[in-house]
Amino acid sequence: MQQQISFVTLGITELDRSRRFYAEGFGWSPVFENEEIIFYQMAGFVLGTFLKPALEEDMNRTGLATPGAFSLAHNVLDKDSVEVVMQKLVAAGGTILRPADIPKHGGFRGYVADPDDHAWEIAWTPGVKIDDRGLVTFGL
Amino acid sequence: MQQQISFVTLGITELDRSRRFYAEGFGWSPVFENEEIIFYQMAGFVLGTFLKPALEEDMNRTGLATPGAFSLAHNVLDKDSVEVVMQKLVAAGGTILRPADIPKHGGFRGYVADPDDHAWEIAWTPGVKIDDRGLVTFGL
Repeated sequence: MQQQISFVTLGITELDRSRRFYAEGFGWSPVFENEEIIFYQMAGFVLGTFLKPALEEDMNRTGLATPGAFSLAHNVLDKDSVEVVMQKLVAAGGTILRPADIPKHGGFRGYVADPDDHAWEIAWTPGVKIDDRGLVTFGL
Repeated sequence: MQQQISFVTLGITELDRSRRFYAEGFGWSPVFENEEIIFYQMAGFVLGTFLKPALEEDMNRTGLATPGAFSLAHNVLDKDSVEVVMQKLVAAGGTILRPADIPKHGGFRGYVADPDDHAWEIAWTPGVKIDDRGLVTFGL
């Protein structure tokens, strides 16, 4: 079986508020949107932001909670970019969870919550390789 | 800024129980593991399974809840593989949330929760392109 994830879908409350965070904060362009979902093409897979009641209906269960027990990370290419990106995300409706500092494995990172309380780690990790297309290879 | 996500990290309770689901159910091999985290190299990014208290400490907040308001998807290359994969995941400790059926946008999909109640959609979607490396391009 392919060692592959095709979609990461976040349950959200308001499309416009969420789009502002992703489009203005990260600077990402949607590849598709309708009245209940927005998709962003990532490097090798797709990020979706889906109205929570519609996600619950699709998943066939209710009671999806925030903050959920997960995080997403966006790695940057140098240490100074960590706080630059975090500031952009805050300006676009994000909330600082953890100001940037040095984790025990080295590098530099902080956490910002999106407007629906989903956690984003913004990280610079020297061992993580990122190619020109944005494809990421594990390393510490 | 790159339209890129580098890590998706799931908060989990027991490393061994979670590893069984991912290693036996999906058939994925870890690229790194220690006493609190396991990483799996995906196509273009990295999946992490991290003990929830350690994730909370890293994120600088407590109270991470399950089931969270998100889902992950694994797309397969043909319709028949959807139920085959779902059965493997159940045999490795997963729980069916939604038996496979046809969503309104077409294709075929079902949902399985991992042992920590994180939702996986197993989907066949004709418009989604997946290359030999497992890199996924959006389509409906």
